[in-house]
Amino acid sequence: MIVLGIDPGLAIVGFGVINIDGNRLSYVDHGCVYTTPDMSMPKRLDKVYNGVSELIDKYRPEVISVEELFFAKNVKTAISVAHARGVILLACQKKGVPMLEFTPRQVKQAVAGYGAGDKKQIQYMVKVLLNLREIPKPDDAADGLALAITYAHVAHNSNSFVIR
Amino acid sequence: MIVLGIDPGLAIVGFGVINIDGNRLSYVDHGCVYTTPDMSMPKRLDKVYNGVSELIDKYRPEVISVEELFFAKNVKTAISVAHARGVILLACQKKGVPMLEFTPRQVKQAVAGYGAGDKKQIQYMVKVLLNLREIPKPDDAADGLALAITYAHVAHNSNSFVIR
Repeated sequence: MIVLGIDPGLAIVGFGVINIDGNRLSYVDHGCVYTTPDMSMPKRLDKVYNGVSELIDKYRPEVISVEELFFAKNVKTAISVAHARGVILLACQKKGVPMLEFTPRQVKQAVAGYGAGDKKQIQYMVKVLLNLREIPKPDDAADGLALAITYAHVAHNSNSFVIR
Repeated sequence: MIVLGIDPGLAIVGFGVINIDGNRLSYVDHGCVYTTPDMSMPKRLDKVYNGVSELIDKYRPEVISVEELFFAKNVKTAISVAHARGVILLACQKKGVPMLEFTPRQVKQAVAGYGAGDKKQIQYMVKVLLNLREIPKPDDAADGLALAITYAHVAHNSNSFVIR
């Protein structure tokens, strides 16, 4: 089964696509949807929505794994990202694909084996687990792959992570 | 010209529709789009998106006036509202209607005449300015009307409030 992992953002939406075949994970694709500050907010949201919709059409994932949002530091950034995350969830809903969400801590735990792993360690484990030659770039796309792997490791045989 | 004012929210999206004819404002409609906590987040966003899209189809506004979001108190609430606001902006963008945004302070200034007016005073002025028999209910719908009035008073002859 194909899993699409999405790291939400307004300027950069990172995505990773993997295939789960029994216990085997394999790499399919990774990349980003970009928007720029010279675009109006509605146009940026439109581009994010269209970009995610196209990814779903292209890869036909059976499930989508999205990073949960809880910031405390910068409310302004949190609000921007939440605007984008809203249209990402809408795109998945419109396409009828089930979504699951994971906290950054759950991703670290699932990919690196413990909740305090740093970004570099996650990226290294993504490379190892998917048998890649290099660490996938940019970070946001590596995070998308990590989210897809998290689904495979944590939720593939469970029902308790559906977005409520 | 028809103006649609929208007070964004996840549980309640308030809206108000007015007509501007020269210097005259007249009331057209007000109401809310509701979602409930028993629905999943993606389904709530879908209902908000569809509700706003239907309002645009029904009233064919030439412009949409949306409340700007900046919270400091409760980040969790801000993130929820921002998810909803994202899909509201997307709905307006998809329908090709220009959007303008105003802060609560700008609304108070434009409707009640000074930036510190309280909620009751705004609602009373909405009733007076639109020549209504009663104060429109619920508060969120009154806020939608106040946003439409703000457009009429502040931006109708200006170009400087388009959402960036």
